[in-house]
Amino acid sequence: MHLALDPAAQDLLFRQARTANSFTGEPVSDEQVQAIYDLVKYAPTAFNQQPLRVILVRSPEARERLVNHLGDGNKEKTRTAPLTAILVADNEFHEELPTQFPAFPEAKDMFFGERPVREASAAFNAALQVGYFIVGVRAAGLAAGPMTGFDAEGINKEFLDGDHHVLAVVNMGRPGEDAFYPRGPRLAYDEVVTTV
Amino acid sequence: MHLALDPAAQDLLFRQARTANSFTGEPVSDEQVQAIYDLVKYAPTAFNQQPLRVILVRSPEARERLVNHLGDGNKEKTRTAPLTAILVADNEFHEELPTQFPAFPEAKDMFFGERPVREASAAFNAALQVGYFIVGVRAAGLAAGPMTGFDAEGINKEFLDGDHHVLAVVNMGRPGEDAFYPRGPRLAYDEVVTTV
Repeated sequence: MHLALDPAAQDLLFRQARTANSFTGEPVSDEQVQAIYDLVKYAPTAFNQQPLRVILVRSPEARERLVNHLGDGNKEKTRTAPLTAILVADNEFHEELPTQFPAFPEAKDMFFGERPVREASAAFNAALQVGYFIVGVRAAGLAAGPMTGFDAEGINKEFLDGDHHVLAVVNMGRPGEDAFYPRGPRLAYDEVVTTV
Repeated sequence: MHLALDPAAQDLLFRQARTANSFTGEPVSDEQVQAIYDLVKYAPTAFNQQPLRVILVRSPEARERLVNHLGDGNKEKTRTAPLTAILVADNEFHEELPTQFPAFPEAKDMFFGERPVREASAAFNAALQVGYFIVGVRAAGLAAGPMTGFDAEGINKEFLDGDHHVLAVVNMGRPGEDAFYPRGPRLAYDEVVTTV
């Protein structure tokens, strides 16, 4: 009653959507990923910095290199997922600010001239975008299987240069047999929200 | 064509939704916030850890205490927003894991026994939830005005104990006069997504 979003969309994105742990063989196309990106790219980041970068793992050789750095519980489902995306933060996002934040191009050096400041900002804002991306995968009618159980340093060295760092790995596809674990509980409103 | 989400919902959440910098006087009720939370609480976090906590700033006295720690450009719009939420990470989220992740209650100590590990996990997963929350505000038909321009240490000391840290401050309401800056550009798909 207090939501403007229609109930079917609420179900698709949040209420019925679930993290999938197995997938059918139906492929996920580049066109689907582009549709997801072209939707979620509009969600906000500080200074419009958009630090998220996405690596689609398509070749069997790259997939095996990735799987080697995953926790044991994440290996098999990633081997058999139609598509896996490595979601990373670009710590040099500030290079794009003069074009991406034209209202105040000086932000590039004034706010983000120091690398530790940039890394912290990239980590937070790219994490926001990971959240948007997961919602976007669901908007495409697919199930997402986001994971943080991996050797981050291993993935950074295997796939990235020194200016990027991995945040999450996300399997994508149609849910397969026994794809879902029982849904866990959620904290009650009063456990999460207080008023001052 | 590649999205299952209907176009009206795409517009509401992403394409037409904009960060608001001014608001009408129409209040935002606790019931609206509860509806937002009861939608976005279902979105995933690692180990179902749900580290996000929300402080609704309702009293004029608390609002002024908050405004004192905001950057100059964020003060006036926060003074006049119908409702402002301080979004924080709970670094002691692991205390809830035995009930929130019943499949593996040992995760509390096995994976999150050390505070630096917990802080990093809380920062990332609560940031995901900040992203979900912003989408949820829009799902309620409201505009969000998320901000990171503040003195984080000041807000931590003013409003939080040592086990929480602020991630974002979000104004909420119906957009007012001249609420929107021109939309910034977005990075092209090929600038963000690569394939291996």
